[in-house]
Amino acid sequence: MFRCARAFSTSPLFKYAAMTCRQYSFQVFRDVPPLRQMRRQLLLDRKTVGFVPTMGALHEGHLSLIRQAATENTDVFVSIFVNPTQFGVNEDLSSYPRTWDSDVAKLEELNDEFARLGGDTGRISAILAPTPKVMYPTLPPSSEVDGDGSFVTITPLSRKLEGASRPVFFRGVATVCMKLFNIVQADRAYFGQKDVQQTVVIKRLVQDFYINTDIVIGDTVREHDGLAMSSRNVYLGARRRAVGLVIYDALKAAENAYNSGKLARSEILDAANGVASRVLSEQQALSPSERALYEVDYISLADPDTLDEVETIDPSKGAIISGAVKMVPLEESKPGEDCGLGDGKVPVRLIDNLIFKPRP
Amino acid sequence: MFRCARAFSTSPLFKYAAMTCRQYSFQVFRDVPPLRQMRRQLLLDRKTVGFVPTMGALHEGHLSLIRQAATENTDVFVSIFVNPTQFGVNEDLSSYPRTWDSDVAKLEELNDEFARLGGDTGRISAILAPTPKVMYPTLPPSSEVDGDGSFVTITPLSRKLEGASRPVFFRGVATVCMKLFNIVQADRAYFGQKDVQQTVVIKRLVQDFYINTDIVIGDTVREHDGLAMSSRNVYLGARRRAVGLVIYDALKAAENAYNSGKLARSEILDAANGVASRVLSEQQALSPSERALYEVDYISLADPDTLDEVETIDPSKGAIISGAVKMVPLEESKPGEDCGLGDGKVPVRLIDNLIFKPRP
Repeated sequence: MFRCARAFSTSPLFKYAAMTCRQYSFQVFRDVPPLRQMRRQLLLDRKTVGFVPTMGALHEGHLSLIRQAATENTDVFVSIFVNPTQFGVNEDLSSYPRTWDSDVAKLEELNDEFARLGGDTGRISAILAPTPKVMYPTLPPSSEVDGDGSFVTITPLSRKLEGASRPVFFRGVATVCMKLFNIVQADRAYFGQKDVQQTVVIKRLVQDFYINTDIVIGDTVREHDGLAMSSRNVYLGARRRAVGLVIYDALKAAENAYNSGKLARSEILDAANGVASRVLSEQQALSPSERALYEVDYISLADPDTLDEVETIDPSKGAIISGAVKMVPLEESKPGEDCGLGDGKVPVRLIDNLIFKPRP
Repeated sequence: MFRCARAFSTSPLFKYAAMTCRQYSFQVFRDVPPLRQMRRQLLLDRKTVGFVPTMGALHEGHLSLIRQAATENTDVFVSIFVNPTQFGVNEDLSSYPRTWDSDVAKLEELNDEFARLGGDTGRISAILAPTPKVMYPTLPPSSEVDGDGSFVTITPLSRKLEGASRPVFFRGVATVCMKLFNIVQADRAYFGQKDVQQTVVIKRLVQDFYINTDIVIGDTVREHDGLAMSSRNVYLGARRRAVGLVIYDALKAAENAYNSGKLARSEILDAANGVASRVLSEQQALSPSERALYEVDYISLADPDTLDEVETIDPSKGAIISGAVKMVPLEESKPGEDCGLGDGKVPVRLIDNLIFKPRP
């Protein structure tokens, strides 16, 4: 069935490319009731729905989740919504990449791929691309810590790690996911391991509020050298892209320590911090037109369920090593240099993590 | 189908009467997965579910909601759960009446009544009576304002009226209702008009979080003289019961003012406050063994959607007049006097409201 979306916002804040009435291989929904109708019919037809919530700017990480969803469900629903309540007042909501046309093209290619695979592979049958007013129908969405609205809070999980420097982030994530889960009523919802704290918060949300959807975590998808895929990577440019690999290298050093038998917090973290300090010193020794500087926000060694910091790893539980670094703007660019979207002037926060699996 | 509940708590806090394996005309669920299975089958069979959430201690107000649900759905689900998170740390959680046996008896009588009615009348097919651990599966339920947990907050609605003196109340209500709604996935859920702020908060919850359940508000059920039915009324005893009618009389005086053409806040509230002061003076003139004293918490004239206080009623919108009084413990009882459950020593908070309908 081919159908056009009913209406498209022209709000400058949400610059979806102007869309004429085109035929997609999936339905595009800007509002909830018609999507619900489709969902209900799928249920009555004993179809299964896998849901991949995104903020657009789709990369291989998202596509990998959608592929997994298509192998496990007859129908895949993808949402594209840049959720204002998870961006703090001083964060990068306005600069977050919005790439509707290329997102849709990627989803069409995936459906072609699924059709070629045939067999039991499902297909993308619905895109939900709501307006902010649809997602926040009564009060305007607030990003203030004390702002009014209808919110879901998951504490103390939300205050840890990313939450320490982004106090409204997981309130925004939990709130929008609750709405999306209620709208889509998926059999399964897919999240990437890269946002590890998000996976822990979402699993807790589903457990505590009895959301009737299984949460599936897909492996982090990485570039050839190991940098975790992220929608924000387009802002890096070549120089910060190369140096930004420090976060992965630091976490790998910690993983090597764990794999070689270390369990003490200090030994694990020393390995990671050693890499982070060494690379920063190397950069500082370069000239402003050659170097890329960064600030380490945190490197954490935490319990996989509570995210409490651990002093000594219990090998029967394993642990999560995670970190965040802020790539600061380039000080000087060189003529013709690839500085990334925003000309190297946008600070880029990179996060990454590795799971230390339990071991005998 | 007759089936026994799988397990029953022996926690002294939740003193359900010891239950042997009896046959009910409905299924009793203490846990979520088997209820979900039943619900799913009802959906596939194109049945409809009306849901009446309660804290037990069922009275005519609840029964009236269940009757309405049975006329509008094939199946009625009733939950009985005294929700700890909506009681503040100094409130009456421990003394809240728990009357499992008589509740079940009333529900059985209702099913007999529905069977006699026949035709399209639905029936009570499921009771959900979960343990606190089922409803709060991870962290213990906190009643502290700053307590940790997974909560739904609806502000600024939750801070008004009842929320002003009960800061965790609507957080607790919204949180437990979100869980229950997700568990039951009802077509319709029924709430009494008596708890007017609760109806406003729940409607907002459903709207903002896209809960796929219609909210139906049933009229307040009153005793012959007008006192609103409440599970807490059993604590009043005859003397406080008679004087407690002051809240209804005060609101009726305000309603008379509105019906006679008054729109100004001062004129409406003066009518109500006049009654409340007069009755209190009358009581104060009596001896401690004859009188029942009370404190007026608030009398509010508010907008029906936002609950903002109104200066002048917009007759096209109408308004809500609502109030709360605390019946304080009896100072002295007389020999043989009916002092109610708890011997007249339990303070009883009474709330009531009337809707001023829009008028041309």
